[in-house]
Amino acid sequence: MTAVRAGDDIVIFDMGLNLSKVLIHDDIQTERMHSLDLIDMGAIPDDRIMSELDGDVRAIVPTHGHLDHIGAIGKLAHRYDAPVVASPYTLELVREEIDDEGKFTVENELIEMDAGGTMAIGDRCQLEFVNVTHSVIGAINPILHTPEGAIVYGLDKRIDHTPVVGDPIDLKRFREIGRDGVLCYIEDCTNANRKGRTPSESVARNQLQDVMHSMEDYDGGIVATTFASHIARVTSLVEFAEEIGREPILLGRSMEKYSGAAERIGAVTFPNDLDMYGHRKSVDRAFKRIMNEGKENFFPIVTGHQGEPRAMLTRMGRGETPYDLDNGDKVIFSAGIIPEPTNEGQRYQSEQLLRMQGARIYDDVHVSGHLRQEGHYEMLDALQPQHVIPSHQDMQGYSGYIDLATKQGYKLGRDLHVSSNGNILQLV
Amino acid sequence: MTAVRAGDDIVIFDMGLNLSKVLIHDDIQTERMHSLDLIDMGAIPDDRIMSELDGDVRAIVPTHGHLDHIGAIGKLAHRYDAPVVASPYTLELVREEIDDEGKFTVENELIEMDAGGTMAIGDRCQLEFVNVTHSVIGAINPILHTPEGAIVYGLDKRIDHTPVVGDPIDLKRFREIGRDGVLCYIEDCTNANRKGRTPSESVARNQLQDVMHSMEDYDGGIVATTFASHIARVTSLVEFAEEIGREPILLGRSMEKYSGAAERIGAVTFPNDLDMYGHRKSVDRAFKRIMNEGKENFFPIVTGHQGEPRAMLTRMGRGETPYDLDNGDKVIFSAGIIPEPTNEGQRYQSEQLLRMQGARIYDDVHVSGHLRQEGHYEMLDALQPQHVIPSHQDMQGYSGYIDLATKQGYKLGRDLHVSSNGNILQLV
Amino acid sequence: MTAVRAGDDIVIFDMGLNLSKVLIHDDIQTERMHSLDLIDMGAIPDDRIMSELDGDVRAIVPTHGHLDHIGAIGKLAHRYDAPVVASPYTLELVREEIDDEGKFTVENELIEMDAGGTMAIGDRCQLEFVNVTHSVIGAINPILHTPEGAIVYGLDKRIDHTPVVGDPIDLKRFREIGRDGVLCYIEDCTNANRKGRTPSESVARNQLQDVMHSMEDYDGGIVATTFASHIARVTSLVEFAEEIGREPILLGRSMEKYSGAAERIGAVTFPNDLDMYGHRKSVDRAFKRIMNEGKENFFPIVTGHQGEPRAMLTRMGRGETPYDLDNGDKVIFSAGIIPEPTNEGQRYQSEQLLRMQGARIYDDVHVSGHLRQEGHYEMLDALQPQHVIPSHQDMQGYSGYIDLATKQGYKLGRDLHVSSNGNILQLV
Amino acid sequence: MTAVRAGDDIVIFDMGLNLSKVLIHDDIQTERMHSLDLIDMGAIPDDRIMSELDGDVRAIVPTHGHLDHIGAIGKLAHRYDAPVVASPYTLELVREEIDDEGKFTVENELIEMDAGGTMAIGDRCQLEFVNVTHSVIGAINPILHTPEGAIVYGLDKRIDHTPVVGDPIDLKRFREIGRDGVLCYIEDCTNANRKGRTPSESVARNQLQDVMHSMEDYDGGIVATTFASHIARVTSLVEFAEEIGREPILLGRSMEKYSGAAERIGAVTFPNDLDMYGHRKSVDRAFKRIMNEGKENFFPIVTGHQGEPRAMLTRMGRGETPYDLDNGDKVIFSAGIIPEPTNEGQRYQSEQLLRMQGARIYDDVHVSGHLRQEGHYEMLDALQPQHVIPSHQDMQGYSGYIDLATKQGYKLGRDLHVSSNGNILQLV
Repeated sequence: MTAVRAGDDIVIFDMGLNLSKVLIHDDIQTERMHSLDLIDMGAIPDDRIMSELDGDVRAIVPTHGHLDHIGAIGKLAHRYDAPVVASPYTLELVREEIDDEGKFTVENELIEMDAGGTMAIGDRCQLEFVNVTHSVIGAINPILHTPEGAIVYGLDKRIDHTPVVGDPIDLKRFREIGRDGVLCYIEDCTNANRKGRTPSESVARNQLQDVMHSMEDYDGGIVATTFASHIARVTSLVEFAEEIGREPILLGRSMEKYSGAAERIGAVTFPNDLDMYGHRKSVDRAFKRIMNEGKENFFPIVTGHQGEPRAMLTRMGRGETPYDLDNGDKVIFSAGIIPEPTNEGQRYQSEQLLRMQGARIYDDVHVSGHLRQEGHYEMLDALQPQHVIPSHQDMQGYSGYIDLATKQGYKLGRDLHVSSNGNILQLV
Repeated sequence: MTAVRAGDDIVIFDMGLNLSKVLIHDDIQTERMHSLDLIDMGAIPDDRIMSELDGDVRAIVPTHGHLDHIGAIGKLAHRYDAPVVASPYTLELVREEIDDEGKFTVENELIEMDAGGTMAIGDRCQLEFVNVTHSVIGAINPILHTPEGAIVYGLDKRIDHTPVVGDPIDLKRFREIGRDGVLCYIEDCTNANRKGRTPSESVARNQLQDVMHSMEDYDGGIVATTFASHIARVTSLVEFAEEIGREPILLGRSMEKYSGAAERIGAVTFPNDLDMYGHRKSVDRAFKRIMNEGKENFFPIVTGHQGEPRAMLTRMGRGETPYDLDNGDKVIFSAGIIPEPTNEGQRYQSEQLLRMQGARIYDDVHVSGHLRQEGHYEMLDALQPQHVIPSHQDMQGYSGYIDLATKQGYKLGRDLHVSSNGNILQLV
Repeated sequence: MTAVRAGDDIVIFDMGLNLSKVLIHDDIQTERMHSLDLIDMGAIPDDRIMSELDGDVRAIVPTHGHLDHIGAIGKLAHRYDAPVVASPYTLELVREEIDDEGKFTVENELIEMDAGGTMAIGDRCQLEFVNVTHSVIGAINPILHTPEGAIVYGLDKRIDHTPVVGDPIDLKRFREIGRDGVLCYIEDCTNANRKGRTPSESVARNQLQDVMHSMEDYDGGIVATTFASHIARVTSLVEFAEEIGREPILLGRSMEKYSGAAERIGAVTFPNDLDMYGHRKSVDRAFKRIMNEGKENFFPIVTGHQGEPRAMLTRMGRGETPYDLDNGDKVIFSAGIIPEPTNEGQRYQSEQLLRMQGARIYDDVHVSGHLRQEGHYEMLDALQPQHVIPSHQDMQGYSGYIDLATKQGYKLGRDLHVSSNGNILQLV
Repeated sequence: MTAVRAGDDIVIFDMGLNLSKVLIHDDIQTERMHSLDLIDMGAIPDDRIMSELDGDVRAIVPTHGHLDHIGAIGKLAHRYDAPVVASPYTLELVREEIDDEGKFTVENELIEMDAGGTMAIGDRCQLEFVNVTHSVIGAINPILHTPEGAIVYGLDKRIDHTPVVGDPIDLKRFREIGRDGVLCYIEDCTNANRKGRTPSESVARNQLQDVMHSMEDYDGGIVATTFASHIARVTSLVEFAEEIGREPILLGRSMEKYSGAAERIGAVTFPNDLDMYGHRKSVDRAFKRIMNEGKENFFPIVTGHQGEPRAMLTRMGRGETPYDLDNGDKVIFSAGIIPEPTNEGQRYQSEQLLRMQGARIYDDVHVSGHLRQEGHYEMLDALQPQHVIPSHQDMQGYSGYIDLATKQGYKLGRDLHVSSNGNILQLV
């Protein structure tokens, strides 16, 4: 969560949840927890610093629908007398967050704004959404145009000119904004230590097509998992399933949630007969039908890409579902492992369980949704910002970005700022 | 080098050079060295064991044109009264090896045979070439059909259904051969410890296209390097260079050699005006022309993908060529690092030198030419061989393959054989 | 578990439990499970192959007290009419295994034999125990002297001339046995891919002393964890705790079990007033006393070195014990992470929890108990065996050993044998 | 090189050479190069910023004798009208630097000051040397006592209470200085990303003793290499060589240089008959004598621990010296690899060459000379500085330190400063 004040007007970008701070504890149900307890756990932003900021919050602007960007709205938004402004898909997911919230009643106005849209923020400023490309649809970078220059909030994105679903990143608009003068650029540093350029989603799609067509002649079970919110990937999985003569079917609570939302807002059109099941009972019913009608006719797309102990694929590995894996059955992980030892361990366990049942593993059929170093270089080149603030990582994660920015002439403490939770930075 | 005897007939598969055993010594010129010295160095196969084999060598069969498969032909082939049988591209490169050889005169007959072709080997056997896909064109897997079953020599390949240049791998034929009975399968284990499936060359092509199109608006220098023998990749580089409005130009001795050979045999048609220069003087002249006419109009494709100290790209990094690198100029490594600390060190040095001149590095725009575990699984499934011999690695490299084969029911010492240089194995 | 037959006499070496095959399943209590179910899970050896061996089992010989060497005795030993022969410490732990067994009644005779001892096996053979050094006391290598030569069963050991507790490895005796003729050597390959030489326990002790003395002036909490069965290490921890003026105290079920057993058989003499508590209630009582009397006076040595979710240290990290961690408190992991992603993940989680409470982590104050490559080289040199069988790993783990043995002149399939579960190998 | 100004008085700490910036170029002889060319290469500090500092340089203070701390004195010191003040061993090495310098005449006064000594710097300040422990003898941390508080220049050290040669680190004095008020602490971050505590030199010594005693019965060649300047290690090697009945002998130019200097100033007393040879001819003569009198009687200690292509051990691997390696001969690397791909590659090559001749490799018998995280924690605790400046790394290297300092309450840009070459920071 980042708040930007220009004159008396304040805009808040993102209100996210740090899921790993929740999961490290046993048996926690965030839905019914109070904000302050979650703040103490480091799970949601400590927004108590906001009382030190003179000015009025005019908008809460989540950039995209991932939990680490919208997951605290249910806990914090009600404290601000301001609307939540977001792209249609993001807003749809915000709505679900608010519905699921069990402790607080969130009644902020919800305003839909498309990429390319603008709205006034007080008398002096304007908010603009620039289309970007990420591992979820509906991602934008919000720009706060102030009399002192533009504030570009750059979380989260890659530069993708062929994103499979939705429009390419609007680099042209970023260059225009750059020419008009950018006061500050806040950057997503998730992959800042990785060399080169993040490939386009079309590369992942091509890779997936290659993998799936290589299985065309296999007459047993094939199962895939990916990020449920990665609608472009789910779309590719659905499409290639049909190309190889199998009926795709989405299984697992979050599969139903994210794909359902995407369909509801018309962002994507799935085949009419595409089934999605979220509740365990209906999932199990679907599995039974698959077993009855023949595994070789189906292509289940399930949750569990990180080996989460309670997710569908892990349950399949444990033999807890009616779907039987046989020797030679294929499991496609169209997802990378989010780099943390906990995930590595759980994913390893899940793969072991699947292998014990005879499954063949196709992992990492995937490209990341975050810029690498050459993307960062391109963005700096396009925006030419006066100030840069790396974000979304710890110092280890920033280091590649800081080395890059330093070579481009920025200097730590002068126009390159490492900030952290609870910190206030005055630029003008 | 592997010799197979069936009755009195012997076929030799491959005669390669271990380049790292040469390079670890300073200032060695293999062209003028005697076979025995090279054998002592471990640089070429110790074929003295051949005298223990009763029978007549009927053919020497290199599978493809990489040096580690044909590089010892100049030193060893003359000892055998047998023709060299190879696909057209491989044979063209064998011809160059023989021409470059300075110590021995090689007068073996050179017989061209296409994928799909067959020839008699003595009275009882037949040699067949099955088309496979690898990081060089003209790769085949030779099959020796014997009365006791087929011997399938599986070096080197990946399973590629969309290989950009040339035909897809002929899995259908492998399955037929499998049904007819395979006595023994000798397998390329280069990537046997890697999970999943090696992507198709079309994925590398897509990745490369994505990278190169992202540079479309850049008005400075862009340089690329790749394996000179990787004709499909060179073709893609040439094609995308033109798509982004630049004149491709091949520079470096081996660039000229391999692409020239491909064009000569008609395997590929480069644009009429594509320049290739090998000798240092003509390369330097080309660089001067590029600098005069404007770097932004050219796309040099050069040697040096492993950071070899004397290759073109490394010389560019050192400022030893007339081509000046400026801040922001792009260098594309369309090649992985061949995993050995020496290469890692040299590549690192080369990248450092390039960065010191301001270059931006795009590395690993590449997919490997060797099967990973799921490809090995597919091949075992297609061939159902009685015996399996992992090859082309040390024990560490075989381990993933042996674990896989063991799970498929093979047993070390019974029908899964780990052999090594100078070893004789009797299967029937 | 390895059975060796010489004439009609059979000796079984080790009967272990593969704990990771148990833990991958939820909520399994092995104590009450039937052997066949555990065999199916791959958790204990599948000894049904024994019916194919003509001859009589004369002895069951566990080499040392680790679970992966004695953990299946409760499930399998009762099937054989033979005594369990072991060193005193190992036998004491076998006794506890048998007592804890809830499904089968194990009534095999238990025979104690010290390192250096021998016993007749039938008329033709003799069993000898040679003293070795490992991460648990009482480790021996059993030798079966047969008319055809000695069978040396080499699991598990390092070469340690200064082992802190107990005698140095008896290399002199191994050399004598080598001179008399070794038919076969079965080797512990756990660290066979690691270069160099495993340091002595005295190096770990020195390292631990250095770490603990550096904390001498700290006036808050210091906690250590290590392998409960690593009596030499526990002894060092206890001793250095007193050197820095703190009362050591052993906490956790297995801490009490292994140290209690060591004391009972007189292998080690702990200070008279050293407290050990195993049951949760008495542990919590001890923690309360520590908090009351001042953390700065105590040095708890607890379970949890691998981050096991239910172990004492993990519970301390979760705040589930009466012991409060404060900023700056020290936690010493005198243990490496057993290399498996599951352990890496759990240990990471445990460290995170400890850090969240302010703890400072000192990890890897440890040396391994297994030979590395130069130790393997020394053993081969001492024994000069006719046949070698690498053991205790998968093929990936054997690879370093096979490369080493091959360089020493052994050849796979001839005198270097890779065996696996259920395999029979005839040497004479 | 860091300059500190207090009032009108300036003290310069360190003037080092970045050797990797030199070695990346071919055939460069720094001795005859001009400062400005070396500055352009990034090989020596760009001290042109000094003209912006009002005040007089009162002293040039190298902290210890490593090249990256004294290697630019020959090129830069003559520009300042100030003495070089250093500990005896450091000063002896400075003298050699000045003698070897071929371009400039350095006539600065050389003042010897021991750890514990102080000298006035102008009217207001005092310079103090506090004894620290590092991988070279004679290392101190200089303190500039100013009216505004102490400036503690913390490069390079580990916290070692049992350093084998010389006195333990004077933590007591650091704590006193901390209590009196530290304005700024500049810290050596070489190992700031490594967990735990750097072991004492006594641990390395113990490890080395364990390795060497394990070779006691070997009757062939044993060779060791280490950092030539690491006098404590060289001393241990010499001592243990004699313990196992071999004559130690130091070979290689820098072996002679550093050990000779240490003996000259009386810092260490080697056995009377210890031979040291630096020039290639005398080294070769020594090797011939060793071969004549029997390798089993000698213990050559040679240069080449990083696999440097021209160093003695690499030449031995290439067979370029009269010393013949036989199968089973031992090579001890009492040194880690300085983590950079170039070194990894060269060291790998050197080990390959040695192995090709039959050598057995014992690597990493070593502990680092730099603090890890818990050492940094201890220093912060002892000094309680108002400001902290991480040093001696890039941003990636600082990241672990910044995360640590941040958790201790420091804040980037406020009291935690990331500086870089050519940067001026005003603290008061």
